[in-house]
Amino acid sequence: MKDFPGTPGTLTGLMLRVGQFTFAAASIAFVATGVRFQEFTAFCYLIASMGLQVLWSLWLACLDAYAMLAPRDLRNPRLVSLFVVGDWVTATLSLAAACSSAGILVLYDRDLGNCKESVCQRYQFAIAMAFMSWVLIDISSLIMFWLLAAG
Amino acid sequence: MKDFPGTPGTLTGLMLRVGQFTFAAASIAFVATGVRFQEFTAFCYLIASMGLQVLWSLWLACLDAYAMLAPRDLRNPRLVSLFVVGDWVTATLSLAAACSSAGILVLYDRDLGNCKESVCQRYQFAIAMAFMSWVLIDISSLIMFWLLAAG
Repeated sequence: MKDFPGTPGTLTGLMLRVGQFTFAAASIAFVATGVRFQEFTAFCYLIASMGLQVLWSLWLACLDAYAMLAPRDLRNPRLVSLFVVGDWVTATLSLAAACSSAGILVLYDRDLGNCKESVCQRYQFAIAMAFMSWVLIDISSLIMFWLLAAG
Repeated sequence: MKDFPGTPGTLTGLMLRVGQFTFAAASIAFVATGVRFQEFTAFCYLIASMGLQVLWSLWLACLDAYAMLAPRDLRNPRLVSLFVVGDWVTATLSLAAACSSAGILVLYDRDLGNCKESVCQRYQFAIAMAFMSWVLIDISSLIMFWLLAAG
């Protein structure tokens, strides 16, 4: 298998995973400390989805760090297939959660115009963090898919 | 470049494009005939996104049909790169639009509980069609990406 930035077991791969973990954790922190978030299904789904993202990215960051220290080669087709499926599922769920929450926010902030600035700003940050996390997991997902297809 | 189901210029490729076009057009029809859809940014965005999907899929369906009748080979790296970018952008926008609309629907139907059955059902159909269209464009997108990476 070829070697380029972002492949598992490299420093750039580890940095991508740490970035995904950090943004997802920040998103959870912003939503979970918000007012009455549990009354909105979309915000609960955002927490669940970002929770999955945190667990997945943390596990892969540990695996990358171990592969760099041991050292081990993680670029075998079976392992990369697992990364492809996991990254694709996590990326899709993250985008879906970020977009459904953004839909609610735009409804209250723009369409209905009854959103307190302090409350809305908290959710804006949470959604922005979720989108940042999605951008990074999507990059990882494309790299893994390219790695598997190129062989 | 390799040849497998769904590649441009084949019958399966054409069927995928026709499917994307049909579901996207059905989604627009269900939303655009709905009550007060223009008051909701998410539903307007769904129409715009599905409109883009209709145009993109129709253009590619015509290209596939031409390539089959002429016959021409569409599997050159430059053209496939264009398909990869176009499919990826369209797929992402479609999923984002479907999810933000689904967020609004769940809010009114489940969280607030004030959604008339006839109105809600129309939007449910529209969102279901948008998701079906996204599934098909995502399959096309993955096939194009694989085709480009495998070379």
